[in-house]
Amino acid sequence: MRGPLAIALGDPAGVGPEIVAQAWERRDTSGLPPFFAVGECASIQAVWGGPVCAVSSPDEALACFREALPLVRVGDGATITPGAPDLDGARIALDSLEIAVGLTRSGAASALVTGPVSKSQLYAVGFTHPGQTEFVAERCGVSSDLVAMMLVGPTLRTVPVTVHLPLRSVPDMLTSDRIVAKGRATARGLQRQFGIQQPRIAVSGLNPHAGEDGALGREEIDVIVPAIERLRAEGVDANGPFPADTMFHERARARYDAALCMYHDQALVPIKTLYFDEGVNMTLGLPIVRTSPDHGTAFNIAGHAQANPGAMIAAIQTAAASARRIAAQS
Amino acid sequence: MRGPLAIALGDPAGVGPEIVAQAWERRDTSGLPPFFAVGECASIQAVWGGPVCAVSSPDEALACFREALPLVRVGDGATITPGAPDLDGARIALDSLEIAVGLTRSGAASALVTGPVSKSQLYAVGFTHPGQTEFVAERCGVSSDLVAMMLVGPTLRTVPVTVHLPLRSVPDMLTSDRIVAKGRATARGLQRQFGIQQPRIAVSGLNPHAGEDGALGREEIDVIVPAIERLRAEGVDANGPFPADTMFHERARARYDAALCMYHDQALVPIKTLYFDEGVNMTLGLPIVRTSPDHGTAFNIAGHAQANPGAMIAAIQTAAASARRIAAQS
Repeated sequence: MRGPLAIALGDPAGVGPEIVAQAWERRDTSGLPPFFAVGECASIQAVWGGPVCAVSSPDEALACFREALPLVRVGDGATITPGAPDLDGARIALDSLEIAVGLTRSGAASALVTGPVSKSQLYAVGFTHPGQTEFVAERCGVSSDLVAMMLVGPTLRTVPVTVHLPLRSVPDMLTSDRIVAKGRATARGLQRQFGIQQPRIAVSGLNPHAGEDGALGREEIDVIVPAIERLRAEGVDANGPFPADTMFHERARARYDAALCMYHDQALVPIKTLYFDEGVNMTLGLPIVRTSPDHGTAFNIAGHAQANPGAMIAAIQTAAASARRIAAQS
Repeated sequence: MRGPLAIALGDPAGVGPEIVAQAWERRDTSGLPPFFAVGECASIQAVWGGPVCAVSSPDEALACFREALPLVRVGDGATITPGAPDLDGARIALDSLEIAVGLTRSGAASALVTGPVSKSQLYAVGFTHPGQTEFVAERCGVSSDLVAMMLVGPTLRTVPVTVHLPLRSVPDMLTSDRIVAKGRATARGLQRQFGIQQPRIAVSGLNPHAGEDGALGREEIDVIVPAIERLRAEGVDANGPFPADTMFHERARARYDAALCMYHDQALVPIKTLYFDEGVNMTLGLPIVRTSPDHGTAFNIAGHAQANPGAMIAAIQTAAASARRIAAQS
């Protein structure tokens, strides 16, 4: 792992700036590697009285990280009111993301961590991607069909095959091709980013009791089993489909390295039930390492010293560990 | 609470007999009130060497409970092979359930606990109800639309509005009437069976992010919000709809007494993720108290001394506590 990590602060009126500042304060106790923030200086100063060093390159960040939070400045001193998002803030969030991705893609930063943004604010300033993940994928020259969102907690990793869809649309959008694509990205990501040579993937069913042999739905028989067979034919150790309700307890979790889930809440409910304050969102299938804390902007508590930096710290640790593993492989 | 609890052993070839015997062994350490089993004596003797006293009435069970596991015998000494279900066993399971329900309905037993059965075996001997719950409801003279299945764990209670349906059918089966009916049964059950005077009910959304104001599905706006408003107009403290993925972490669970969930896995995944070995299924809306351990027959481990009696013990404790509360109210 060469350079420091780049952290886009996200929406300047959200909790991003304060949780990054708190992560920096805990750099020693949490064993964090050098990182630098990318964002508006005023957004940090509005919520934190600690030392900031303005830097113009990742190398400068390495030099000052022990003494101050290094910051690549975006914006020109806009007025930031924590908890009150506006369009200027959305532009700053987007510029911060663009710069942080560029520095990571160039190799100057070793990994990318993205703070929480407000999609509705971003849409209002012309952002056209479904989310930050698709934006990052495009900047990396990767089709968003080939990337996968992995939720990472201390004893559980889940990957949803379908994500931001109405539940009604899930059964028809669930195809063997999509399951295979996400299964491949998951297996490759576990090898490359987590150093697991022979990853074990548990595939969930869509229906209650995984369809009970067709009595409670046919998607397992018609779509999921064929996808598992294709993955196995490619050498991926995929098993299932398993009933979702018996997949996530402690003993079950020990039997696989990642659960491939059929829809958003099937993947998100178990992770957030167990690890609400430390869940990390990792994008698999990119040429760079990218993580983010698995929570939103929390405008309602921004600036009130209530935000928990646990997920941001976990996102930094997870990104750093992945970057180290990849560097060791190359 | 007058009489002992009645426990139908469930399928004689499943784990029911051994977990009931183990619960009896732990009657003192787990603080269990007197209970009696209803089933085939051979099914217990096949898996347990402890003392059994054959009884013909709940009163006799009270007299011998300290020294032996009281048993109301069903069947006439059939050959039972643990792990090998057959149609004779299914008939014994059904007769046991019928007798245990009758003794509870009559008031001779204070509550009903039902062991795990095999639905496919029961169907083969002419059982026509979707499950034991609907059978018990019918014997109690209650429409199954008015009962609700509550999953109970130490810090979480969930109630699914729809249960054994293909996921594809859930959106169209989810009506405001159904949500209101289950919400009423939940509120009433929390008052009557758990002694919570002003129960707080958290209602989940159906779609990711609870539909995100319609962007990810309209069921929240068209179906769930109107149901919540009707429940509130009736004096039920129902709130939501909340995104399912942020409803079940520790702090969120402290904010409500039960989560009203829109489909099977939404209710079952969080309970079983947290409390796989101690989840209790309780039927609300009946004139009797009925619980069951929230697991199946586990034919694959029956007779191998591997079954965990935790959920059966929790089912007995939960039923006894409810029966005591109801007795105190009347």
